[in-house]
Amino acid sequence: MILEGIVSTTNDDGSPNISPMGPSIETELFDAFLLRPFQTSTTYRNLKRSGGGVLHVTDDVELFARGAIRQFTKTPAVQPAQRIEGHVLIDCCRYFEFQVRSIDDTDDRTEIVCEVLHTQELRSFFGFNRAKHAVLEAAILATRIHILDPVEILREMDRLQIIVNKTAGKSEQQAFALIVGYLQENGVGLS
Amino acid sequence: MILEGIVSTTNDDGSPNISPMGPSIETELFDAFLLRPFQTSTTYRNLKRSGGGVLHVTDDVELFARGAIRQFTKTPAVQPAQRIEGHVLIDCCRYFEFQVRSIDDTDDRTEIVCEVLHTQELRSFFGFNRAKHAVLEAAILATRIHILDPVEILREMDRLQIIVNKTAGKSEQQAFALIVGYLQENGVGLS
Repeated sequence: MILEGIVSTTNDDGSPNISPMGPSIETELFDAFLLRPFQTSTTYRNLKRSGGGVLHVTDDVELFARGAIRQFTKTPAVQPAQRIEGHVLIDCCRYFEFQVRSIDDTDDRTEIVCEVLHTQELRSFFGFNRAKHAVLEAAILATRIHILDPVEILREMDRLQIIVNKTAGKSEQQAFALIVGYLQENGVGLS
Repeated sequence: MILEGIVSTTNDDGSPNISPMGPSIETELFDAFLLRPFQTSTTYRNLKRSGGGVLHVTDDVELFARGAIRQFTKTPAVQPAQRIEGHVLIDCCRYFEFQVRSIDDTDDRTEIVCEVLHTQELRSFFGFNRAKHAVLEAAILATRIHILDPVEILREMDRLQIIVNKTAGKSEQQAFALIVGYLQENGVGLS
């Protein structure tokens, strides 16, 4: 099962890199998972060098929106991880400090097996909200503007906008608007 | 913000009625919420009579699928609520025992203001998973087969099936298949 989460890794200069990732969780215990970053990604390079990071479960969709379009106006607040050299997002639902067990980079999309060393719950996940997921799907679309037909993107965004209008809170509306703005800046105009 | 949750109410004979509901949560504290059941629904009748119920946050999408198509092969396991006469789902992430504050049934869709009396967290919510949400959207489609164009439903189900194939665990696959079966039984054949 794929979790849409947020992974922090540590850059060369010690600063955090925050990136949305979709690890595959195969164990009920959540004691290990598989990451598949592209070799061109910062997450890949950082994991290869430092051998550890933090996977976060969060219901804050703005993180996914900003991560997808790489528009962090400021780095989200972090605190030091306990078991690895790394960064924990202060505002998340739960997190998993992990170390890399193995890296298979024979393919473009590396397979990185991660072992969880420490986990903690900070707050409750809101629950299912259709608007939160609409933002997530919009964020995924934003990462695919170079491979998808703009007409298809617009049709999908129209559909998602209806769900946002019906079920969103303020932060989901703002996150969705971020994606709409990004698409417009990149030549995908919205009706 | 609309939460897609599961509400249990108490039938005339004391048994639980389990129903997916989308309460509107307007407070950060989650100390009150608004339900808008149709007056034809069992949830409405039970709340009108008993004045209380339990709202559950869960990531178990089978409950939403079975609730939408009213196919509970057996009633989910419950335990007695603490602050009201009611039923708490044993397998949920968190729950809110509530009492009805006011009922405005001048409209077909009643507005019921609910006050939370007691809340508890039982387990962590998995987090964002695209397949879980695909099941949720499929369940919503299943409740609308009398108003939507079958062609539109099929197109949407095809799109959702791709997401399920990519990101689901076993229980999401099973829940999605339940909806597919229901649609077929009701004349909406799937490719």
